[in-house]
Amino acid sequence: MTERKYNVAILGATGAVGTRLIEQLEQSTVPVNTIKLLASSRSAGKTLQFKGQDVTVEEATAESFEGIDIVLASGGGSVSQRFAPEAVKRGAVVVDNSSYWRMNDNVPLIVPEVNEAALRGHNGIIANPNCSTIQMVVALEPVRRAYGLKRVIVSTYQAASGAGQSAWQELVDETEAYNHGETPHPAILPVKGAEKHYPLAYNLLPQIDVFEDDGYTHEEWKMIHETKKIMFGDKNSKDVKVTGTAVRVPVPIGHGEAVYFETAANTGATVAGIQKVLSAGAGVVLEDDPQQQLYPQPVNAAGKRETFVGRVRADVENDDSFHMWVVSDNLLKGAAWNTVQIAERLVSLDLVAVPANAAEKFNSL
Amino acid sequence: MTERKYNVAILGATGAVGTRLIEQLEQSTVPVNTIKLLASSRSAGKTLQFKGQDVTVEEATAESFEGIDIVLASGGGSVSQRFAPEAVKRGAVVVDNSSYWRMNDNVPLIVPEVNEAALRGHNGIIANPNCSTIQMVVALEPVRRAYGLKRVIVSTYQAASGAGQSAWQELVDETEAYNHGETPHPAILPVKGAEKHYPLAYNLLPQIDVFEDDGYTHEEWKMIHETKKIMFGDKNSKDVKVTGTAVRVPVPIGHGEAVYFETAANTGATVAGIQKVLSAGAGVVLEDDPQQQLYPQPVNAAGKRETFVGRVRADVENDDSFHMWVVSDNLLKGAAWNTVQIAERLVSLDLVAVPANAAEKFNSL
Repeated sequence: MTERKYNVAILGATGAVGTRLIEQLEQSTVPVNTIKLLASSRSAGKTLQFKGQDVTVEEATAESFEGIDIVLASGGGSVSQRFAPEAVKRGAVVVDNSSYWRMNDNVPLIVPEVNEAALRGHNGIIANPNCSTIQMVVALEPVRRAYGLKRVIVSTYQAASGAGQSAWQELVDETEAYNHGETPHPAILPVKGAEKHYPLAYNLLPQIDVFEDDGYTHEEWKMIHETKKIMFGDKNSKDVKVTGTAVRVPVPIGHGEAVYFETAANTGATVAGIQKVLSAGAGVVLEDDPQQQLYPQPVNAAGKRETFVGRVRADVENDDSFHMWVVSDNLLKGAAWNTVQIAERLVSLDLVAVPANAAEKFNSL
Repeated sequence: MTERKYNVAILGATGAVGTRLIEQLEQSTVPVNTIKLLASSRSAGKTLQFKGQDVTVEEATAESFEGIDIVLASGGGSVSQRFAPEAVKRGAVVVDNSSYWRMNDNVPLIVPEVNEAALRGHNGIIANPNCSTIQMVVALEPVRRAYGLKRVIVSTYQAASGAGQSAWQELVDETEAYNHGETPHPAILPVKGAEKHYPLAYNLLPQIDVFEDDGYTHEEWKMIHETKKIMFGDKNSKDVKVTGTAVRVPVPIGHGEAVYFETAANTGATVAGIQKVLSAGAGVVLEDDPQQQLYPQPVNAAGKRETFVGRVRADVENDDSFHMWVVSDNLLKGAAWNTVQIAERLVSLDLVAVPANAAEKFNSL
């Protein structure tokens, strides 16, 4: 039988994630028939390349999605809110990198190594989780499968590019300013559009996204709810307790995470056992050899699809309690690669289809 | 009665901490009679200033401590190992910033806001704790006093200057290199003298100090043992469980810490209650107003003696469990200021005296 080929559209094609969506799709196993690159009016008209061919970026409209089979979206929450239902209405399956649909009960939240099975029965929109969540659950899943998972306390060390290309540039410009005795002029970080801006260069900013009333940031609540939904099927699952602190650090690419976790009781989890299941873990590369000073680092993880794990240790005072250090390229596994990987899995599982009446599930409220 | 004045020697006077020992002593309440600046042969002969007067740096020898009342030492572990007993033998009280004596049962390990009382009965050597420990216990002590303290899980974000002036310079040089398309040449970090060196600029290094056999670094074990000794009088105290991960970040001055802690049960600890005791806490400044985007940052803490605390939140799924974010200038409260502050307290408590036969307690083994 002739292999089915797909008409793919990339929404938000010109940003830090968008350009990597193009690159990851080029390298992927998705059989692409036609490619359409969509962006805002500001970016429309630019010429980019897909597999050596010039492609002109178009301004996204509802009609852009006519005849499209798969949409890879990374245009931000309001863009996804507006266009994902329009795409579904026209028969396209949307893999969305924004946070807008993630907690919707009609939308699977997918990290293929963890919960690919949740793709079955989708309603046309599949959500890509938050960057910091993805790498953490990739690292935790082999542990959960072998020893259970009861509790997670995470401290993140998140790279500037997680806030976009302009935030990355701001970090570099500020560093250059400081190095040359000039005053930096932060305009983006910690949160674009928020009232106050602070330098990230040579600094630490314990604010990622806006604050909620309980003193947590949106980023921290995303990690909590998304981890529960991905690993246990319910954003409020009581099967695992999750909490943490999300901090922006002066690194351009590659989030770090110090993850403290508790396995189920009496499962015999040991450091050696955990290292063993991690070595065999899908999407995981174990970099853990203290005597060789081997551990994950952003400079080494950048540009790679894998999630790197090291510094596995036991909490000697508490049973079933351990630490690990997790690093991954936040723009790849944290965004573009996981999105394209979901598309690959949809293709492999023959799930590139929108159920009848699916679009009704996403009518604007 | 005429105020007693003291002959003070600063050992290791030319490093990042040493220069701040001079500055903090100048600003302190210690009545200084004479000042002697001691260093290695490499630095001897330099002229520095104390309260506007030129002082020539001398090479440290055992005889340097004749007639000295107080020694403020920050010359490194082997220097303290060699010279602290020599100073005590000659009647000087040594406040030592190195790690060498900290776990010695004859040596109080002091953070004045926490355990000043342990100065009484000292044997001539008082140890200044590790930078990352000091700021954490300053922040935790008001909580402990009001609500008890049962458990701590900390993730640190430690500045380059914690590894010395040359490590700080290395960070800046590497950043400059990266910004201009050149290759950095790490020679110091993560650990001076270790086999492998990695860039810190735009990177994260989850190794501070050498590794122990259990996969923890020396820095992590210091935090554990020192916290227990300072807060509960016993480096192996079972009254509090402490664990954590120490990570070097591309920040020049000012350690950050995401501290997760559990109070005793049934003490009614709340976020508001914790914020209140922190506001009144000795050495603590509460910077905690999410709506104003107010939280501790290294760029704001640098150059100040205080420990800044913010991001106080409850772990909603666990009773008596909370988070906070702690930042302090690691060269001041983490080193030079705490050292000078100990000297101030010794003076105030009239404890600048060495007991008879004290030196025998520190004979080389």
